[in-house]
Amino acid sequence: MSKDKLLGQLYEKLDKVKGYAYATSIMHWDSATGAPKSGGLKRADSIGILSEDIYKNIVSDEVIEIVKKLKEMESELTTVEKILVEDVQKNIDSYIKIPMEEYVKYSSLVAKATLVWEDAKEKNDFESYAPYLEEIIGYIRKFADYRGYTDHPYNVYLDDYEPGMTVEKLDEFFAELKEGIVPLVKKIADKNMDFNKDFISVPFAIEDQKALSEELVQYIGFDLSRGFLKESVHPFTMGLCKDDVRLTTHYHLSNPMSSYFSTAHEGGHAIYEQNFDDSISGAYLVDAASMGIHESQSRMYENYICRNYNYWKNNYNKLQDRFPDQLGKVDLDTFYKAINEAKCTLIRTESDELTYSLHIMIRYELEIELLNGTLEVKDLPKAWNQKMQSYLGIVPPNDSLGVLQDTHWSNGLFGYFPSYALGNAYAAQLYKQMDKDMDIEKVIEKDELPKIKEWLTDNVHKYGKLMKPEELIVKATGEKLNPKYYIEYLNDKYSKIYDL
Amino acid sequence: MSKDKLLGQLYEKLDKVKGYAYATSIMHWDSATGAPKSGGLKRADSIGILSEDIYKNIVSDEVIEIVKKLKEMESELTTVEKILVEDVQKNIDSYIKIPMEEYVKYSSLVAKATLVWEDAKEKNDFESYAPYLEEIIGYIRKFADYRGYTDHPYNVYLDDYEPGMTVEKLDEFFAELKEGIVPLVKKIADKNMDFNKDFISVPFAIEDQKALSEELVQYIGFDLSRGFLKESVHPFTMGLCKDDVRLTTHYHLSNPMSSYFSTAHEGGHAIYEQNFDDSISGAYLVDAASMGIHESQSRMYENYICRNYNYWKNNYNKLQDRFPDQLGKVDLDTFYKAINEAKCTLIRTESDELTYSLHIMIRYELEIELLNGTLEVKDLPKAWNQKMQSYLGIVPPNDSLGVLQDTHWSNGLFGYFPSYALGNAYAAQLYKQMDKDMDIEKVIEKDELPKIKEWLTDNVHKYGKLMKPEELIVKATGEKLNPKYYIEYLNDKYSKIYDL
Repeated sequence: MSKDKLLGQLYEKLDKVKGYAYATSIMHWDSATGAPKSGGLKRADSIGILSEDIYKNIVSDEVIEIVKKLKEMESELTTVEKILVEDVQKNIDSYIKIPMEEYVKYSSLVAKATLVWEDAKEKNDFESYAPYLEEIIGYIRKFADYRGYTDHPYNVYLDDYEPGMTVEKLDEFFAELKEGIVPLVKKIADKNMDFNKDFISVPFAIEDQKALSEELVQYIGFDLSRGFLKESVHPFTMGLCKDDVRLTTHYHLSNPMSSYFSTAHEGGHAIYEQNFDDSISGAYLVDAASMGIHESQSRMYENYICRNYNYWKNNYNKLQDRFPDQLGKVDLDTFYKAINEAKCTLIRTESDELTYSLHIMIRYELEIELLNGTLEVKDLPKAWNQKMQSYLGIVPPNDSLGVLQDTHWSNGLFGYFPSYALGNAYAAQLYKQMDKDMDIEKVIEKDELPKIKEWLTDNVHKYGKLMKPEELIVKATGEKLNPKYYIEYLNDKYSKIYDL
Repeated sequence: MSKDKLLGQLYEKLDKVKGYAYATSIMHWDSATGAPKSGGLKRADSIGILSEDIYKNIVSDEVIEIVKKLKEMESELTTVEKILVEDVQKNIDSYIKIPMEEYVKYSSLVAKATLVWEDAKEKNDFESYAPYLEEIIGYIRKFADYRGYTDHPYNVYLDDYEPGMTVEKLDEFFAELKEGIVPLVKKIADKNMDFNKDFISVPFAIEDQKALSEELVQYIGFDLSRGFLKESVHPFTMGLCKDDVRLTTHYHLSNPMSSYFSTAHEGGHAIYEQNFDDSISGAYLVDAASMGIHESQSRMYENYICRNYNYWKNNYNKLQDRFPDQLGKVDLDTFYKAINEAKCTLIRTESDELTYSLHIMIRYELEIELLNGTLEVKDLPKAWNQKMQSYLGIVPPNDSLGVLQDTHWSNGLFGYFPSYALGNAYAAQLYKQMDKDMDIEKVIEKDELPKIKEWLTDNVHKYGKLMKPEELIVKATGEKLNPKYYIEYLNDKYSKIYDL
């Protein structure tokens, strides 16, 4: 059979998978943006059925045969086609050794577990959630065994989210980060400085916050004609296709900047999803290079741009105009310090740039122990609190503010958290390169944000998953991932803020 | 094979179909409540794929065989099981003669046509929509041929939405209605009375309208813990399961009562969907008896209750308290007349109780002609306008306010419009019965709305589709559908209002 005919058959199968995945995504979106909890089981049933169909369409003798034949004629394939075939092969490999019934049960389990987790978090009831988490971890370990791995079962999942990443590399990365960040955190704590944050802890009308968020996403480069912004408890972004990209944020009456930075963060993800090259969509490679690269884009906008002093030189008086009662008498420097305070706090998503990666280290270490079997789910809250004490010097007063704070584990997302720390480091390295290419601080100061989006699209967005993360970062910056830029950035920024 | 084993196999198939249908519904919901238009084609693809799966799971040799065997052991089946088997058989019959490729193409076509219609309505551009409508009608006629029919192809679709209904019965029904309503409309027109409606044509803050709608749905009996109210251009209700029922309404700044009655209308539908008996859900018969019966519930709340004088005796001062600037100085009688004015207007959904069914007659007659082939799509706008002139004495100034106003045809919903008129008549007959059973006017006056919901649940809601509409109306009222109650009701009500 000719190459084109084989590819045609493959595309047909992938179209079906995309159709099911689209429906599944919409159900998740619906669930997160207001669907009544009472209907959750029916949704879980439907998701279970579609998961089975996705499985069957990828792991079918037909597709396996097509891929095998295409690999035999590798010399005839274009680079893009080769990458696609490899990608499908990886996908098959990730499924084929898992018995379908187990995969379907697992899909249904995580859909239910997410509802249970939500409830448990609300009621501070870890125990009701524990059996679900235990079952999920059982599957995670078993699936790693089925799929096979080198060195550590965790490597299977790391490679899913961050192709090429391993526990070995990650241990080194985190060790370097720890060495670079912990002393800085300590120095700042020793200074015992408290910044005034009272003026951003008073009521800001929700309607005004909403208007501000709508304005912000557009300002940083999101195209509202091909997507929209909504509200959900946990902000997230969903790219259904490059012409339908959705992001959410949350609004807290007396914490407007939480919403502001959430919007900027999700905005970064959403801009990535809107700017894949059309050739990438056509080639079925519409996805980020990795979760870490995805996170680099959100961090870029949230921290490197929107928490930048030069950014606020332009934007602070506009904010004052919008909220004259609350901010009219607060000067730029006071505001800047308030939004950049480094303080050990309980909630990852609300933590500052400096301490953020410490939260990730805690989760990473716990995941490794859970997968090793050296930590049992029943002992997880205690272990969580001990690590909080050791890394951040604080202990959550209850599990809702501790081990129950994140949804990831209830979704079966083990191996995912490290992407957040990697994202911070990728962002620093990309930012450094932008600085070389265009004097980024000047660009921000001169309010030329479209230039940044253009650079990021040219160097990151447009490629989709045409390149592995390492290839992409080397092409963009001339160097493999190097945490030193992130450490330097943090030291520079916080030394200035805290006058170290 | 034993009955239980066969039923088990059938339930398994139906569960799959339900899973696909659930996902499809969520995509429709998403599309109607804010999804960006730019992503519409991907959604259409996904809907197309799931439609194919629904088809395959109903029209499979396996299911056909199961149903055949179950019918052979009919004497062993319970009544409920018998009804289910019949229902599945009807479903199979409605699909089996249609070639799957055509069915899939058609499903994808209507998904696209809905987007095209939306655009055409916005731009007053019937021509861009015409080829789609033509293609849809082609399928509708062809599918009727495939499926086979007695007397008229239209009967196929009537029976889908209103089991047991035929063109013959419907012609008689509409003739009686015409005879009862047209002279009344003429008498009112001759009186040439204009009621003051200025006070409900001024701005009412959208936020307040929203709060009012939320209060209203709960007040009439909708359980907000098992569903929710949102906003969409065209109000609708979607019952995903009895524990996840959604309704939408719309808000117009200077037309608050439009939103009020839309909410009451969809509230009636939504209450129906929330109150199926659990045994009905278990027996896979969760659905309305018919679209006409469904519509009787929405009309009951919209008109019979919420446009009732006694209803406003209780509720008008609460409304005045909410909107003192607009309504503080307007007395109850003036308000009551304003919300019950009978006037020939352009838009079906905004038309009053009296002229409403005339709009339906127009659509019914046009659908018959389109299916007969005696009317071509290109001549449809002209035919529309002529009928508007003849029934209502007015002609729309453009197609957006005329032939493009309703979404139904773009969805392939031919044979659906008559349900609206039937619903009005069912509602009158049920209302009459409630009056016998509990003196309904007193109940409304005494603000005892839960009693009404209870009666409707006992006589209508709880049965799901356990009974055909005729069986249901006979059981509830002791008589087959009889339009005289509707005609009497209209004559009584409007004679008082217009002092005839």
